[in-house]
Amino acid sequence: MTDQTPLRLKSYICGEWKAGSRDGQLLRDAGTGSPVALIDASGLDMAGALDYGRKSGRALRAMTFHQRAEMLKALGKALTERKAEFHALSLATGATPRDGMVDIEGGFHTLFSYSGQGRRELPNTRVLTEGAVEGLSKDGSFSAQHILTPLQGVAVHINAFNFPVWGMLEKLAPTLLAGMPAIIKPASQTAYLTELVVRRIVESGILPEGALQLICGSTGDLLDHVTGQDVVTFTGSANTGRMLRTSKAIVENSVRFTMEADSLNAAVLGPDAGPGTPEFDLFVKEVVREMTVKAGQKCTAIRRVLVPRAQVQAVTEALAAALAKMGVGLPGDEATRMGALASMAQRDEVRARIRDLQGDAEIVVGNPDAVTLTSGDPDAGAFLNPVVLYCDRPGDARAVHDVEAFGPVSTLMPYDDLEEAVALTQRGKGSLAASVFTDSPEVAEQAVLGMAPFHGRILLGNRASAKTSTGHGAPLPNLVHGGPGRAGGGEEMGGIRGVKHFMQRSAVQGTPKLLSAVTGRWIPGAPTREDIHPFRKSLADLKVGDRIVTATREVTLADIEHFATFTGDTFYAHMDEEAARANPFFDGRVAHGYLIVSFAAGLFVQPDPGPVLANYGVDNLRFLTPVNPGDVLGVELTCKEINPRENADHGEVRWDCRVTNQTGAVVAQYDVLTMVAKTWPQ
Amino acid sequence: MTDQTPLRLKSYICGEWKAGSRDGQLLRDAGTGSPVALIDASGLDMAGALDYGRKSGRALRAMTFHQRAEMLKALGKALTERKAEFHALSLATGATPRDGMVDIEGGFHTLFSYSGQGRRELPNTRVLTEGAVEGLSKDGSFSAQHILTPLQGVAVHINAFNFPVWGMLEKLAPTLLAGMPAIIKPASQTAYLTELVVRRIVESGILPEGALQLICGSTGDLLDHVTGQDVVTFTGSANTGRMLRTSKAIVENSVRFTMEADSLNAAVLGPDAGPGTPEFDLFVKEVVREMTVKAGQKCTAIRRVLVPRAQVQAVTEALAAALAKMGVGLPGDEATRMGALASMAQRDEVRARIRDLQGDAEIVVGNPDAVTLTSGDPDAGAFLNPVVLYCDRPGDARAVHDVEAFGPVSTLMPYDDLEEAVALTQRGKGSLAASVFTDSPEVAEQAVLGMAPFHGRILLGNRASAKTSTGHGAPLPNLVHGGPGRAGGGEEMGGIRGVKHFMQRSAVQGTPKLLSAVTGRWIPGAPTREDIHPFRKSLADLKVGDRIVTATREVTLADIEHFATFTGDTFYAHMDEEAARANPFFDGRVAHGYLIVSFAAGLFVQPDPGPVLANYGVDNLRFLTPVNPGDVLGVELTCKEINPRENADHGEVRWDCRVTNQTGAVVAQYDVLTMVAKTWPQ
Repeated sequence: MTDQTPLRLKSYICGEWKAGSRDGQLLRDAGTGSPVALIDASGLDMAGALDYGRKSGRALRAMTFHQRAEMLKALGKALTERKAEFHALSLATGATPRDGMVDIEGGFHTLFSYSGQGRRELPNTRVLTEGAVEGLSKDGSFSAQHILTPLQGVAVHINAFNFPVWGMLEKLAPTLLAGMPAIIKPASQTAYLTELVVRRIVESGILPEGALQLICGSTGDLLDHVTGQDVVTFTGSANTGRMLRTSKAIVENSVRFTMEADSLNAAVLGPDAGPGTPEFDLFVKEVVREMTVKAGQKCTAIRRVLVPRAQVQAVTEALAAALAKMGVGLPGDEATRMGALASMAQRDEVRARIRDLQGDAEIVVGNPDAVTLTSGDPDAGAFLNPVVLYCDRPGDARAVHDVEAFGPVSTLMPYDDLEEAVALTQRGKGSLAASVFTDSPEVAEQAVLGMAPFHGRILLGNRASAKTSTGHGAPLPNLVHGGPGRAGGGEEMGGIRGVKHFMQRSAVQGTPKLLSAVTGRWIPGAPTREDIHPFRKSLADLKVGDRIVTATREVTLADIEHFATFTGDTFYAHMDEEAARANPFFDGRVAHGYLIVSFAAGLFVQPDPGPVLANYGVDNLRFLTPVNPGDVLGVELTCKEINPRENADHGEVRWDCRVTNQTGAVVAQYDVLTMVAKTWPQ
Repeated sequence: MTDQTPLRLKSYICGEWKAGSRDGQLLRDAGTGSPVALIDASGLDMAGALDYGRKSGRALRAMTFHQRAEMLKALGKALTERKAEFHALSLATGATPRDGMVDIEGGFHTLFSYSGQGRRELPNTRVLTEGAVEGLSKDGSFSAQHILTPLQGVAVHINAFNFPVWGMLEKLAPTLLAGMPAIIKPASQTAYLTELVVRRIVESGILPEGALQLICGSTGDLLDHVTGQDVVTFTGSANTGRMLRTSKAIVENSVRFTMEADSLNAAVLGPDAGPGTPEFDLFVKEVVREMTVKAGQKCTAIRRVLVPRAQVQAVTEALAAALAKMGVGLPGDEATRMGALASMAQRDEVRARIRDLQGDAEIVVGNPDAVTLTSGDPDAGAFLNPVVLYCDRPGDARAVHDVEAFGPVSTLMPYDDLEEAVALTQRGKGSLAASVFTDSPEVAEQAVLGMAPFHGRILLGNRASAKTSTGHGAPLPNLVHGGPGRAGGGEEMGGIRGVKHFMQRSAVQGTPKLLSAVTGRWIPGAPTREDIHPFRKSLADLKVGDRIVTATREVTLADIEHFATFTGDTFYAHMDEEAARANPFFDGRVAHGYLIVSFAAGLFVQPDPGPVLANYGVDNLRFLTPVNPGDVLGVELTCKEINPRENADHGEVRWDCRVTNQTGAVVAQYDVLTMVAKTWPQ
């Protein structure tokens, strides 16, 4: 790679690979300094790219959530097959193979994870309902339902240099699952790896045309053309983020803007976790790992190491010993434990920030100005050995809480009690992640509740999770990633929460009939149809609103006593008139709740083999009116929601079930969940 | 009021009522022009107010959600008792008594509504968990839980002039319920009414000291001092909003900023809703109401009236006839149907915007330059008669989609088909509210799904909800209020969603033991205690983690057949071996799901009178493994969550229930919901 004429990176916009009009910036291999690629996007039609993306959104919106989830899975598989070439190119970014795993396989993991979450947690529809139907009238004639629909613009994702693959895919997965197209703008320094992955994505033909565009180089006037239907996300430096956040079109059109910027993440060694405890060792290991993975170029890396004052010496010695073993060298070299920074400019930047930190702290491990390597040329590659600083009076210091040296650099600082430790974490003014190493529930509670308002994620490390913990620095697709204040105030991922970032929430009000038409779900009061028993209908015939109103059945005292004896549930409220009357909720002996739902099933079930295959569960069961001996029960069972599965010959059907008594009062209400065949006979 | 020397409004900051250092601006009665008050906040210590608020947040955070909910209810009651004086002063704002109801009783309604939602939908705790426990390891030793904790700053609410009471309370209710203190800055023009209400709130002593501060006048340098723990909300003009959004401290500290600004809300008359239909009449009535309530000074008012081209004449005539009956005059006068605008300056502004609209449209009803009154002096009060404009080619027009005349002004425009109507609503570039008048499910579906990405709320009007509809313009506490793009991109209220706007979401990772300590809820894998049967423990003794592991019971074929005969549920999978085997989910005859839960209750229930009073429901029941004849069931029932009620001698207890078979496989899993006495014997 590095011996060839540098590749001219192209952008993929409006369905074509296009080069910029200039030669552009030369990108060099972080470890060797050899030319890798030229990057430029001058003269490309950015407004056209936005328009093109917006138009192509129709194809994504025409798919259901499950179809989009299947698409993400197919994409993950196709990219996994090509991972060797991604790993080969990843070395040029300074990343070791282990670093590359975090970026490359970590990126694919977000695709698979969102695919699974989409299939499990979203319905197989195009519109998402959220929350309960809100009744707005006593007679049930006027209600509301919140829905979410995909925004009709484009998501512009402006990414950082440190994770050229994961950084793209962690944003792309929820965007596509929501039904929104994206334009990716990778940071120039490592854009060649993003470009290669996008090239393979485009070649795979898995995404609808226009769902993904790529800009290699400056976005030019792109952000002048964004509207309230677009979304802009930014990961990178706070200064650039502020400039983007205040740009004219973003402000004037109230464009959703998500930022993930500087973060002075802290790790706290619990007061209970002295030398000799497993937590002490885990803590040291984690600090070393966070300092050295990706050469410390992670937004979530531990920058502030808070330890009980009595442990300063022990921790310093342990860190020094462990860091001494982390050989720095060429990323592809087997002896290398830590690779290079992304560029010489980046190394200069980190050295300057270390000097800022030295205003408050002294270096106790490492020397930023002398590079010691196990392989490679210290003058050609962007190498830097790990540096630990020590700040003795962190309560009075500023720089250590404000300055982020984006490399293998952390500052150790003592605290006198847990309250002070919590206060020091808060001095970061909002961080992406923090960790607390403790085996004490009391320490965990006090620390987490004090730190939570300032942090997007908090990891508790202890002996019981030593082998299974995902670690301080790892954002996970099903957990929120982002932090308040200095960290940018943004929120990404977090499972289906992250999908909603690309959708508009709307409250829809109206009669049940009209609301049901909009959402595709049956709502109490919406039209129903009673013809053949709905359990005789396959998904091909079943419609929401299909209903059975059953015959009725009296509940006798004998039934209650028999049920009690048979099941063993002889709770006094069923068995003892006097004791039942003394209970604040009952006027006398009552039927068991489980008797009511069992009798209800006896009333609504159609017994013969048919398309309804199984009752796999019940949701939101509430017993609303006590059932006394002599009460007569009947059931209304109405098809509420139908979710055919993409790759099976059945699907889930949710039924609204209301059990009423002879006065019409609802005694029990719940959702019955069934599996139903797509066709019958099959 | 209006004959007296004008009141000097004071601000309530740092626990004291303080006057500004200057005379300030003179506020006049909107209908008569008489002086009402002087407003000024010069020289007040704004940074001190923020600090004071932040410190007082501790008292709010020490309360539980239910305690805060009770506080809101008490506040609503205390203010309701004083409503006569609020209504009397409200007339000075130009509001009729009916307008005053929307503002004053409407405001109290948000207090009561949030109080109810808080008690029903939030636990009685200080920390809120959100979503399921996320398993992060196969062996269950490492999991995550999202939690929400109150931000530790102050919510600064900058409000508009049109709803001096509701505008404050709709923001204050979710803020206080979240546990965050607030500083209210009402728009000057009508601040005297806000000031009176705050005076009564302070006198009531219901809120903890510092939970509410008020600034009457300019906020001075307040916004220079906000941090990432503060929240700023703004309702008002887009220009001011943009200035605030880009102010230095808000940008630098990524302060949460919620804006609700201009909105060119549309109402669409469905193609099915011709003259003579109930929907046509409802549509005309709603447009007239929206134009005239608060003299059209509502962010949600209908500005664009979209009708089928064939109905233009009929709608114009109907609007003209209805508006002719809306007598304009002094707000307190009985004959008055519409009052005054808030000020002469506001009238000048509306007239100027009508001139802008006239670039695209012609006036077809009303005359902005000649005022016709039923009472009052046209030169002294800020009166304006309703004006309807007509734009014949709205697809080519700009002003009618961009210019908001914040008064009794709407523009009628024709559409040729529903698709065009949807496209025209989208030309508003994002709105707070829209409405569609139709009785057709197909029209409702097409219109709502097309409009939803551009709207925060959409109302469907038809004959069946004629009497119960809350109307186009009414934001409701349990529905989101806000809109994308031009409307500001903010979101307020929406039930508990709105409470979370004032809290930080954090993902907490760790072992079940530590997560359980942080959240106060039992999580699978967290420590358990088995001593006496937990049903023998009142809330005074019960702890999360208290568990019973029951004896076991075999399920025989006779049991299954007996249950089938007894309940009537003779579904073939229970009764017919061959048919059951043909089912894709079963290997032969299986026990009923309801049999499993009934037997489980027989195993875990303690029958004697005791602190457990009732089983009121079941959540998330899933049948995970089929139960065949001969299988032996046992139950683990563990106390998961305890919610004592504030004003009752019992509370809700949620139990984790797992039914396992002889191999240890979980056959059913669910939450059992019970009412438990606070003490026993009582």
